[in-house]
Amino acid sequence: MSIRALAFDVFGTVVDWRSSVTAELKRFGARHGVERDWPAFADAWRAGYSPAMDRVRRGELPWTRIDDLHRGRLVELLADAGITVDDAEIDDLNRAWHRLDPWPDAVAGLTRLKERFVITTLSNGNVSLLTNMAKRAGLPWDCVLSAEIFRHYKPDPETYLGCAEILDVAPSELMMVAAHPSDLRAARDAGLRTGFVFRPAEHGPDRTLRRPAADEFDVLAEDFSDLADRLAAREDFAP
Amino acid sequence: MSIRALAFDVFGTVVDWRSSVTAELKRFGARHGVERDWPAFADAWRAGYSPAMDRVRRGELPWTRIDDLHRGRLVELLADAGITVDDAEIDDLNRAWHRLDPWPDAVAGLTRLKERFVITTLSNGNVSLLTNMAKRAGLPWDCVLSAEIFRHYKPDPETYLGCAEILDVAPSELMMVAAHPSDLRAARDAGLRTGFVFRPAEHGPDRTLRRPAADEFDVLAEDFSDLADRLAAREDFAP
Repeated sequence: MSIRALAFDVFGTVVDWRSSVTAELKRFGARHGVERDWPAFADAWRAGYSPAMDRVRRGELPWTRIDDLHRGRLVELLADAGITVDDAEIDDLNRAWHRLDPWPDAVAGLTRLKERFVITTLSNGNVSLLTNMAKRAGLPWDCVLSAEIFRHYKPDPETYLGCAEILDVAPSELMMVAAHPSDLRAARDAGLRTGFVFRPAEHGPDRTLRRPAADEFDVLAEDFSDLADRLAAREDFAP
Repeated sequence: MSIRALAFDVFGTVVDWRSSVTAELKRFGARHGVERDWPAFADAWRAGYSPAMDRVRRGELPWTRIDDLHRGRLVELLADAGITVDDAEIDDLNRAWHRLDPWPDAVAGLTRLKERFVITTLSNGNVSLLTNMAKRAGLPWDCVLSAEIFRHYKPDPETYLGCAEILDVAPSELMMVAAHPSDLRAARDAGLRTGFVFRPAEHGPDRTLRRPAADEFDVLAEDFSDLADRLAAREDFAP
């Protein structure tokens, strides 16, 4: 029953992408003297992410990292919004996804969890994105694993099983931690343990998120501090 | 000319494998009541490493991680030495390579270098080995990259170029740091910058190592603190 490592989803689970990207877009707009509905722009940018990954997952696109998928969508959205800037400006704005701020509990919670478990990212974000983000935000990962390493995007089982294999633990010794039930269901189907963390503000104040059923995942936590408490209380999970 | 990231060889460059493995072997011997020439055993164990990787590099073996190459050699050496122990004991002893102690300057030097550059491993050690080692020794990597990720052992160019690509930097923006000229020559041939760190004690007191020529590599340093000083003094290298 013991758990040796925790693999974290990142966008939405560790970092607040919507507030961070909206703030970057507002600064971008101010610099260029344009006003738009920036929270809606951020949502539209993020909404392009899943369909683009699905094209890679279905083999319609060769392996393409998130930085490039994000950039493709950004170019479309800027065109739709009638905003023209040069390539270097687009590159810089695209790297907003490298500069996301963590949820307030994330660094302290990860630091506690790291005392007991190996903690890694398991994100669809590419390695350089995750590395730059961790460096800026002070996220204390033991290592940085990504869909990019496995050449498969979550929720493909190769990501969860590849993560266990490269950490040299059994799938049942690895807990996927995420704020998204679909990610956790796929991890569970691959034999991993699952920890749900509730991030009700992920999609902003106008979208209400509900908690999953209490018994669907191995642990249900309010934030990373609560996750550390709950894991510490489960002696059967001790590494 | 700027450098954005430093990739570190690990065995011998960051950690003192010979003293650490010898100490583990001595404890193993004491536990089992056997006495052998443990420094020579450690040298023989390490000497099996390059030929085994070469078999993988030539395609005679499928991809095999260092943990398994180390274990194969250990089983041979124990048999040669007439030592019989059970599989769990062999596994534990084999993980001595996860528990190597850093050179005294390593943690403080890396901590300084991390302020200015992205710092990563680029080792033939597998990801779990490097992750466990970093966790135990407090090595503050920004990310953990390994031959295992590129499915090529150094000095294959795929490792150096793969490291630059996954960090999203040009080869010339990445400096390989190693105590071994052969590693640095291969990195240079792939277009990377090179930093030599002198580790005269790597092979113990009876083997004298010489410094390479002063102009062969971009930087020649006595240890990681000296490397941080020398890189800070090179304004042309500033990220």
